[in-house]
Amino acid sequence: MKEITLKNRPQGSPTHDDFSLVEWQKPTLNAGEILVAVHSFSLDPYMRGRMDDAKSYAAPVSLGARMEAGGVGQVIESASDHFEIGDFVFGMTGWATHAVLIAKLVRKLDLPREHLTRALGVLGMPGFTGWYGLMTHGRPKAGETLVVAAASGPVGSMVGQLAKLRGLNVIGIAGSSEKCDIVVNELGFDHCLNHRSYDTVRDLRSDLARLTPNGIDIYFENVAGMVLEAVMPLMNVHGRIPVCGMISWYNAGRLGGDADMATLSAPSLWRNILVNRLSVNGFIISDHWDQFSTFLQEVAPLLDAGKIKYKEDITEGVENAPEAFIGMLQGKNQGKTIIKVGP
Amino acid sequence: MKEITLKNRPQGSPTHDDFSLVEWQKPTLNAGEILVAVHSFSLDPYMRGRMDDAKSYAAPVSLGARMEAGGVGQVIESASDHFEIGDFVFGMTGWATHAVLIAKLVRKLDLPREHLTRALGVLGMPGFTGWYGLMTHGRPKAGETLVVAAASGPVGSMVGQLAKLRGLNVIGIAGSSEKCDIVVNELGFDHCLNHRSYDTVRDLRSDLARLTPNGIDIYFENVAGMVLEAVMPLMNVHGRIPVCGMISWYNAGRLGGDADMATLSAPSLWRNILVNRLSVNGFIISDHWDQFSTFLQEVAPLLDAGKIKYKEDITEGVENAPEAFIGMLQGKNQGKTIIKVGP
Repeated sequence: MKEITLKNRPQGSPTHDDFSLVEWQKPTLNAGEILVAVHSFSLDPYMRGRMDDAKSYAAPVSLGARMEAGGVGQVIESASDHFEIGDFVFGMTGWATHAVLIAKLVRKLDLPREHLTRALGVLGMPGFTGWYGLMTHGRPKAGETLVVAAASGPVGSMVGQLAKLRGLNVIGIAGSSEKCDIVVNELGFDHCLNHRSYDTVRDLRSDLARLTPNGIDIYFENVAGMVLEAVMPLMNVHGRIPVCGMISWYNAGRLGGDADMATLSAPSLWRNILVNRLSVNGFIISDHWDQFSTFLQEVAPLLDAGKIKYKEDITEGVENAPEAFIGMLQGKNQGKTIIKVGP
Repeated sequence: MKEITLKNRPQGSPTHDDFSLVEWQKPTLNAGEILVAVHSFSLDPYMRGRMDDAKSYAAPVSLGARMEAGGVGQVIESASDHFEIGDFVFGMTGWATHAVLIAKLVRKLDLPREHLTRALGVLGMPGFTGWYGLMTHGRPKAGETLVVAAASGPVGSMVGQLAKLRGLNVIGIAGSSEKCDIVVNELGFDHCLNHRSYDTVRDLRSDLARLTPNGIDIYFENVAGMVLEAVMPLMNVHGRIPVCGMISWYNAGRLGGDADMATLSAPSLWRNILVNRLSVNGFIISDHWDQFSTFLQEVAPLLDAGKIKYKEDITEGVENAPEAFIGMLQGKNQGKTIIKVGP
């Protein structure tokens, strides 16, 4: 039984030195707990925020504590009436091969073993994030134009595909030409721009403007930085910006200052919100679990019908999680980043 | 018949040199037009924006053209079936003693001569702005805390008084101790801070934090700058920020950079929106005239009952409008700024 713990709080981008791989002794279960053999766990950008001790929407991971993650697995010991040995479950297993979980915080999964990882991505927190943000704050209407970055990732690909199904013009932004191929040819977006192929915000904005002749009605914000700066002047009056992340700023420190930020000042952001009467809504998906079953009822059939596709980027072995995490923050993943640790 | 025209586009703060006082010859009326003898017209912060030629939500005033303003007055000549000589009206008279107006863009007023100026402030665009922004985007709930700046002005005083009537804890911010006296003792806010008495954002924030022990749920944004920077870290989870103006940034140029802006970067603003799941909504009141009669029905009785009070800062003479406007942008007015030009 192994786990990855937080060794140091990173300054800027995390390195291998910030993590430790340690052996872990199974404790005796208390009443209401279960022991889970982890099948796989999820790596997500929000985890970078948990490594800092700045005030945020969730407590930071303590130094020496297990890195947090949602994971799926099988119950191998149970001190709860609600779970039996053999049940497949989702819970906050962390970066580990095994986890003791409080049964009432665990969700039983109605998925076969070969589809367990869906509960980490397309039918899990990231897919739910895309669905909730688009439907609640994006308010998509047929004929409108939507832009979403990290378009091949699990949030962006859900947002773009749902928007296509509703008749929007959908532009993805991704970090490589391979990702853009997937976004257009497999996920069905109208266009995709590789942001790494641009030296300046102005060039990115100019290509984006060419692809959005009627302006941008919805910008689904999960990256910020250069993409936000390129998008802002193209927003239409009464545009909507659901904000669920800002991965390009997670490494920048509290007061920001990302190399791309030539001109995006607080006054120019604020002015754009006023002049274009924008609706900007931050949201954290964990506030909205009450709508999770609605999401599953709506999206699971689309998945079964092949109308929503998904990509997974699976690395084997708990010891490889730090490298996969660092790579994901650098945009090296293609699809939902998952660490597989069990059979 | 006289008018004030725009002579130069100001660099930063406007000066007297940017305006001309000119004689004006009454033209022959076309069908559907009326001639109005102006009683008084309104000076508002948004007019500073119209003096620039930057892209905004409304076209700029052309060089040599009459400065725009809403005004009230009496019809003295009519080529419209809808207006008779003697009618009191509201329309976009501009900075002038007389105006030719297109009748269908003019609203007849049901106010006695001594209350005509109400249609410029408390029962006009500013009062409507406060009511609409608070009700639609602020979504006030009893027991919550609201902060509004320019608190003695016509927008801020409407926002704060409506919020008090709904049981909120209301903190005003204003630019002098005299204004703060009015805000607390006449308008009934719980507290008021004089932002000019602070040398640093930190000091303002610290006093604001003391007055808002439960955090801030609604920040009604009409000034931006130092006040926004002080408020942002105090916002509660699920807080709301209706944005209807940013007077402290109007003189700062498109990319901002106000002397007070020590630390308010675009990333810190954006991060706050995400972490606190804020709802930030820009709005321009001219999009919402369809709700004006609802506003009048709701607020006019509160005025008659003495539950909403208002302050007017009246200067006589069209030739004094530039000075009053420059003074208003510097915060020298006390209440709604009005230029009275007729009997």
